Amino acid sequence: MLVAATPAEALASARKLPRPVGFVPTMGALHAGHMALVQRARDENASVVASVFVNPLQFGRGEDFERYPRDFERDAAMLRAAGVALLYAPSGEAMYPPGFGASIDPGPPGRGFEGASRPGHFAGVATVVIKLLHALEPARLYLGQMDAQQLAVLRAVVRDLDMTVEVVAVPTLRERDGLALSSRNVYLDAGQRSAAPSLRRALAAAAHALAAGDGDVRQATRGAAALIERPLELEYLAVVDPQSFAPLERAGPGALVVGAVRAGATRLIDNETIG
Amino acid sequence: MLVAATPAEALASARKLPRPVGFVPTMGALHAGHMALVQRARDENASVVASVFVNPLQFGRGEDFERYPRDFERDAAMLRAAGVALLYAPSGEAMYPPGFGASIDPGPPGRGFEGASRPGHFAGVATVVIKLLHALEPARLYLGQMDAQQLAVLRAVVRDLDMTVEVVAVPTLRERDGLALSSRNVYLDAGQRSAAPSLRRALAAAAHALAAGDGDVRQATRGAAALIERPLELEYLAVVDPQSFAPLERAGPGALVVGAVRAGATRLIDNETIG
Repeated sequence: MLVAATPAEALASARKLPRPVGFVPTMGALHAGHMALVQRARDENASVVASVFVNPLQFGRGEDFERYPRDFERDAAMLRAAGVALLYAPSGEAMYPPGFGASIDPGPPGRGFEGASRPGHFAGVATVVIKLLHALEPARLYLGQMDAQQLAVLRAVVRDLDMTVEVVAVPTLRERDGLALSSRNVYLDAGQRSAAPSLRRALAAAAHALAAGDGDVRQATRGAAALIERPLELEYLAVVDPQSFAPLERAGPGALVVGAVRAGATRLIDNETIG
Repeated sequence: MLVAATPAEALASARKLPRPVGFVPTMGALHAGHMALVQRARDENASVVASVFVNPLQFGRGEDFERYPRDFERDAAMLRAAGVALLYAPSGEAMYPPGFGASIDPGPPGRGFEGASRPGHFAGVATVVIKLLHALEPARLYLGQMDAQQLAVLRAVVRDLDMTVEVVAVPTLRERDGLALSSRNVYLDAGQRSAAPSLRRALAAAAHALAAGDGDVRQATRGAAALIERPLELEYLAVVDPQSFAPLERAGPGALVVGAVRAGATRLIDNETIG
């Protein structure tokens, strides 16, 4: 596995790989969810490139940038073992040298929900991912369905900026009790961890009610919200168009139920498509 | 000469051209200044692509988007005669279909001067040019030194987003009396046209004073401003770092004297590098 530390190194290495190239961007702290993205990329491409970069632009003030879990050697070993051909692991200085100042505003899909809770988050995500795409020139970009709004934002930015990379959404991997795999799950204490799967149950209940009933979002989400267990605190539970992330008042198959809870200082998100 | 109307058509055609490809973006209303960009691109590349698109995103409210001069057949004939291999002339709908919402904020180089006078202008410029670059994948981008802040903004965005296109600045072409060629010169009435070269004279006087004297920008620009002739009204006359467009209080060789005047509803800009 090649390792590149700068945009120029990444591009020089990426251009030598057999094509098509599939790309998996990560912030490290890899778990089975990331590895499912890598496996999917291997299945569909001649080469896989991955990035490990904890992107300061997408963390707000008071968020967990400093304490975000980092273990580069472990991450690199996992990616190597999974057959990744090129790992792009730039430093903060390589990505944002003195004088850096551009940013990409993804527009409406990034405004509500996570974008409202985390000002600047999706501009940071869009900016770093477009930089990574320029440095690696993949044919396909693999993203987790778990971060559904990030997926919508990046689909929109790629489309709006006339980029040809194909965005591929990979289904969320879950613990046996339904909790979506996330690098932030390590922050949960025993009580929070025990309650965490209730977010998924609430989303599934809302999706089921909307699939079976008359599509009244307010009624379905009110009932579902009652399933969130203490000490989790519900931040939002809503139904959106999966492309625009516009909230829906009436919803049926294909719409997306999204939710976020707070567990102490940790936020957990999840989503469920109405079947 | 091939003509493409959509990003997909442009990319399919551009990828078949002999490389390297040089790209000249325009808003049409072509004059000798544009043709100098095309000629330079021909000299340095195997193929030249040009675009003609009057970009609504870079016009503010009350600006001249509606009345901006348009003559597609004439522009296309000029580009064909100059040896352009591919003309990309998208419609507004092809560039900004329903649901379009992303934008690129170029950051500090776009904040002052033209950016302050024309809110949103440089975000509109950056967004459209990055779209054009994605649709054409040129090796080199040719821009006029005349729009010095646009040049600084696009250099910064290309660098910050890790794009590999080389930005080439082409010297300003001028009328015999020194007025920089601009598609907006057609708006000038006789009195405005007669006074217009005084902007260039003022910039040159400031540059000369700064090259010869002690580098005191305030003193040099105060003297130069007095050279602006009625009915022109001075909007700004300043000295900046040509990369960051940060204003300088002391300046010497390599710094850029920039100025803008109003002539009725028309704005004229120009710049002069301190020799």
